Amino acid sequence: MAYNAVETITRKRDGGRLDDDQIRWLIDAYTKGEVADEQMSAMAMAVFFQGLDDAELATWTQAMIESGERLSFADLPRVAVDKHSTGGVGDKITLPLAPLVAACGAAVPQLSGRGLGHTGGTLDKMESIPGWQASLSDEQMRAQLASLGAVICAAGAGLAPADKKLYALRDVTGTVEAIPLIASSIMSKKIAEGAAGLVLDVKVGSGAFMKTPERAHELATRMVALGNAAGLRSVALLTDMSTPLGLAVGNAVEVAESVEVLAGGGPADVVELTLALAREMVALAGLDVDPADVLKSGKAMDAWKAMVRAQGGDPDAALPVAKHHDEVLAEHSGYLTGLDALGVGVASWRLGAGRARKEDAVQAGAGITLYAKPGDKVVAGQPLMVLHTDTPERFEDARAALEGAIQIGAAPVERTPLVLGRIG
Amino acid sequence: MAYNAVETITRKRDGGRLDDDQIRWLIDAYTKGEVADEQMSAMAMAVFFQGLDDAELATWTQAMIESGERLSFADLPRVAVDKHSTGGVGDKITLPLAPLVAACGAAVPQLSGRGLGHTGGTLDKMESIPGWQASLSDEQMRAQLASLGAVICAAGAGLAPADKKLYALRDVTGTVEAIPLIASSIMSKKIAEGAAGLVLDVKVGSGAFMKTPERAHELATRMVALGNAAGLRSVALLTDMSTPLGLAVGNAVEVAESVEVLAGGGPADVVELTLALAREMVALAGLDVDPADVLKSGKAMDAWKAMVRAQGGDPDAALPVAKHHDEVLAEHSGYLTGLDALGVGVASWRLGAGRARKEDAVQAGAGITLYAKPGDKVVAGQPLMVLHTDTPERFEDARAALEGAIQIGAAPVERTPLVLGRIG
Repeated sequence: MAYNAVETITRKRDGGRLDDDQIRWLIDAYTKGEVADEQMSAMAMAVFFQGLDDAELATWTQAMIESGERLSFADLPRVAVDKHSTGGVGDKITLPLAPLVAACGAAVPQLSGRGLGHTGGTLDKMESIPGWQASLSDEQMRAQLASLGAVICAAGAGLAPADKKLYALRDVTGTVEAIPLIASSIMSKKIAEGAAGLVLDVKVGSGAFMKTPERAHELATRMVALGNAAGLRSVALLTDMSTPLGLAVGNAVEVAESVEVLAGGGPADVVELTLALAREMVALAGLDVDPADVLKSGKAMDAWKAMVRAQGGDPDAALPVAKHHDEVLAEHSGYLTGLDALGVGVASWRLGAGRARKEDAVQAGAGITLYAKPGDKVVAGQPLMVLHTDTPERFEDARAALEGAIQIGAAPVERTPLVLGRIG
Repeated sequence: MAYNAVETITRKRDGGRLDDDQIRWLIDAYTKGEVADEQMSAMAMAVFFQGLDDAELATWTQAMIESGERLSFADLPRVAVDKHSTGGVGDKITLPLAPLVAACGAAVPQLSGRGLGHTGGTLDKMESIPGWQASLSDEQMRAQLASLGAVICAAGAGLAPADKKLYALRDVTGTVEAIPLIASSIMSKKIAEGAAGLVLDVKVGSGAFMKTPERAHELATRMVALGNAAGLRSVALLTDMSTPLGLAVGNAVEVAESVEVLAGGGPADVVELTLALAREMVALAGLDVDPADVLKSGKAMDAWKAMVRAQGGDPDAALPVAKHHDEVLAEHSGYLTGLDALGVGVASWRLGAGRARKEDAVQAGAGITLYAKPGDKVVAGQPLMVLHTDTPERFEDARAALEGAIQIGAAPVERTPLVLGRIG
């Protein structure tokens, strides 16, 4: 059957269903360059408005998986369980989570990316550890998983190349936010990775892709259904991203906070989310162990150090520190009623913790340390946060991003619950 | 002010208004290649769904005009009035209309295009006249308008180059049908041409871009408003395109039918529409003359012959005839209740009257001659139409396009009125 790009686009544009073969043709032809970028971006925008039904989405995702290689961890001595976060400000959870779940007895492959925009990238954070290397061969990655149970490394280029091409296109054409395209982008890679189970951390709020609980719920539901239908047992937690996670936003500062958690301390919200996700992963792996006990035992810290060393890093080395620091003070006394995740994320990004273009470098020491979180009592003139950067000319832009992000009120407020829902 | 493509696309996608400067930046940056095709196609799809308000549309159209040169016919001894049809099957009206209105005393510049898809192109039709040349220099075009009052020629590349680029993009990305983009595409060129008045023939029905009266009405209203706001006095007629216009569909066969009309004969619907449009143009030109009298006088035929000769054509030469012919017979007796314009248009296109790609040639003799129109009584076995082509292997594909296009019923039906409305 011969399909045609314009007819395929207009069918979706006008609210029609695409045939299974038509979707497979589209993804394959786009990957080969027979369907042009300008056609695929119009299609992506049509999908933004008209959506994909469950069967269309499953076929679309399957076609992206089939564009590349599939891994399998079935030969490992441990059950492989995976985790994916849709991205948030201060979201360093992968760092304590992977060694913790490994210490519980599962294998945790975290094939990660670098950050682009206001949400940081796991590899950027890890690379602030002196000596640590993100790139592993497939054999190295598997050997590390078998011996230590945890690996955080750069995702290879072989998984879902169709998604790689489509994601780069969506990024420059204003079509990132289409829920079926987000779901198929994430799940094609996760299904191709070949773990036995997957926990999804779907963020909701100003600092997340999904600004409303309704959209986050829809995305989570569709991803869990895609995973389960493809044999990847999946669970999603909806978690709050209206304010940053923890007290550190950046690269080295987030590593330091992760190590605090592994040492049995750290901010309550980071500990809570790490344990909540770990419990889901341990359950998916069929293990009967409480991650809280394992964290207390120090075995998670041991796993972290082993994992860092295995990739050339020195877990005991001092982390990089920025050259310049600038405090942001409370303008009034009262209660901190809001600390907007997006504003803080953009400020950290502008300080040098993130990159504007793929080829930019990030500053290991740049970022923000928070001294107060929503719900805390504050006094006029006290520091609310410290900005860190090697390039002090960026302070002004960072402060501009914080404009309106800090709200102080007269009455105390309840803290928003961190875990807002569970799907699976 | 610096704008950004992704932010501009997402603003429109999410239902926001674009600033005037933002629209001017977008069109200019796209014309220069700074906004990429894949970004503009996503924008076009966003406009398909979210529209442009009147002020946005006026700015968008103005920006496309400003991307190129502007003509003026103010120095002519006659008032220049223009006509544009949104395109239909069997729509040869420009051919009798231009010489008729010239014979009434106005100047009629018809800067035309070639056909792509199931609606024929005026230049393709004229080029079936032996010797006739479509390309004129600007000076030749003006000299002919001054001396004869009518010219049908290829539009130069200088008018609204932004539209040329955008139209080519819309054509391959399923974004042709967005009403604001159709309106700005047509009106940017018509305003840039610099006539004093414009009559728009907005087609409605299966064979037209606008399938419903509501969409045709919206398009007509927006185009008339754009023209009047820019100083181009504009009027639109909404006319039926549920069935082909006249009895001839193709190239040479449509020229022959046009000559019949100029000779005082021809199908009633072609005569009716030619006179209705001529009356509007004569009124816009401020002339006090009845086109029906001028048609009867033979002066329109004289103007036609002079116009054809001025461009190298021989108006008395025999027109090309296709090498092969095939009749389509009535399957039942009764009344022809439907003869679908789209089906007939696609059949004619497949016979060789139209082209699938810009670089294809058309067959001068290919097309369809109708023997019956909706409302006519027919007898089983009588020929309803004759298919013409030089390439008889195409008969089968053409017949497939007619599948379901011919309806015969037991009861007589009213003929649909040809002129469905007037805006202006």
